[in-house]
Amino acid sequence: MPTLYHSPMSTASRFVRLILAEYGFQTDLVEEQPWERRREFLALNPAGTLPVYLDDNMRSLSGPYVLAEFLDETHGVLKRDRRLLAEDPFQRAEIRRLTEWFLQKMENDVTRPLVRERVYKLQMTTAQGGGPPDSKLLRTARNNIRQHIKYLEWLAGSRTWLAGDRLSYADLAAAAAVSVLDYLGEINWLEAPIAKEWYQRVKSRPSFRPFLSERIPRLAPSSHYADLDF
Amino acid sequence: MPTLYHSPMSTASRFVRLILAEYGFQTDLVEEQPWERRREFLALNPAGTLPVYLDDNMRSLSGPYVLAEFLDETHGVLKRDRRLLAEDPFQRAEIRRLTEWFLQKMENDVTRPLVRERVYKLQMTTAQGGGPPDSKLLRTARNNIRQHIKYLEWLAGSRTWLAGDRLSYADLAAAAAVSVLDYLGEINWLEAPIAKEWYQRVKSRPSFRPFLSERIPRLAPSSHYADLDF
Repeated sequence: MPTLYHSPMSTASRFVRLILAEYGFQTDLVEEQPWERRREFLALNPAGTLPVYLDDNMRSLSGPYVLAEFLDETHGVLKRDRRLLAEDPFQRAEIRRLTEWFLQKMENDVTRPLVRERVYKLQMTTAQGGGPPDSKLLRTARNNIRQHIKYLEWLAGSRTWLAGDRLSYADLAAAAAVSVLDYLGEINWLEAPIAKEWYQRVKSRPSFRPFLSERIPRLAPSSHYADLDF
Repeated sequence: MPTLYHSPMSTASRFVRLILAEYGFQTDLVEEQPWERRREFLALNPAGTLPVYLDDNMRSLSGPYVLAEFLDETHGVLKRDRRLLAEDPFQRAEIRRLTEWFLQKMENDVTRPLVRERVYKLQMTTAQGGGPPDSKLLRTARNNIRQHIKYLEWLAGSRTWLAGDRLSYADLAAAAAVSVLDYLGEINWLEAPIAKEWYQRVKSRPSFRPFLSERIPRLAPSSHYADLDF
């Protein structure tokens, strides 16, 4: 069976797990701590990013961009109306633009700093950079959340799904980021009723279910994290 | 004619300009200062990244990832042995992995901090964050260069072109980053004879020529920057 190296609070890992589940793939999940920079892991992916997919012939594919495109080319094209990328090149461009938005811009502005300060630093040794969160970094990231949730609210309000009429990579990328932030209780859903309705729809999908029961050591999720009707 | 908003020392801009030139596109080039965050520009691309392509129907496409995939789907597929992405999904994955390496990892580790400290800060006002370069950031970026050039040397030594037998997006992404660093005189070519031979080949292509005559205000290029035989 193929293996997926992932980390539970990594947006990119969750994004690829959602694609694999939507397309009905079975994989062995192996947890990798991204800050450890294990030599064997770097041999698979010199960039050190997550997730990494290792197929049955020991060929590795690294990172959400490479994996999403590869899975579209080898499986998505056969899925007709369940394909997670569109047929039209402009529509594909819009899906990719938003996927990149949630996996890179929102990641840099919000998700990565919050996960690092609140989750990884709890698990790292002092030599690895562990310790209490940096309150200045937390404040900056939290200021940035509102802008991103506002944009999500606008997208959810103007389209059925975030990039258009059909569920796409854009929804899975956004849901991956949102689910990480929601575990941490960082989203004020009162400010984003339409985005909340969109998130409830994604959260109810079978592909999403495994996330709802996962727990991070020494950090309980927000009280509504696992509720489908929050 | 379509318009490309770009910045001369932006790796992603150079990468897309190389693709357009390899595929024989004509565009109007409009220079955009990425730190200005002009409202009209943000209306075209809310992420504020470069480059942005505006077609004749005023549809915009933003960023190197979206543009490279769009240009492959609409033009690359017709180019047969001049296509800049491969046919085989695993080969495509390798091209994308390396493209991302040069446009993101090398950009974060080396190119972005060096360009910001040495180029943009010369052109920014004090209120925009202009001023003398931060010597600590310069030192870190320069320490990171050697690792990246070593990797480039290894790739150039093991393959005809960086991702395999044919010129691909991986070469254009690497050449875009290298050409920015070479303008700044930041590359010690004595340490990388095979990478140098690869770069000479890319540099000699007609698509590359416009870069060799471009000059940044108040910052002359390294003495060998424009030489094809350096």
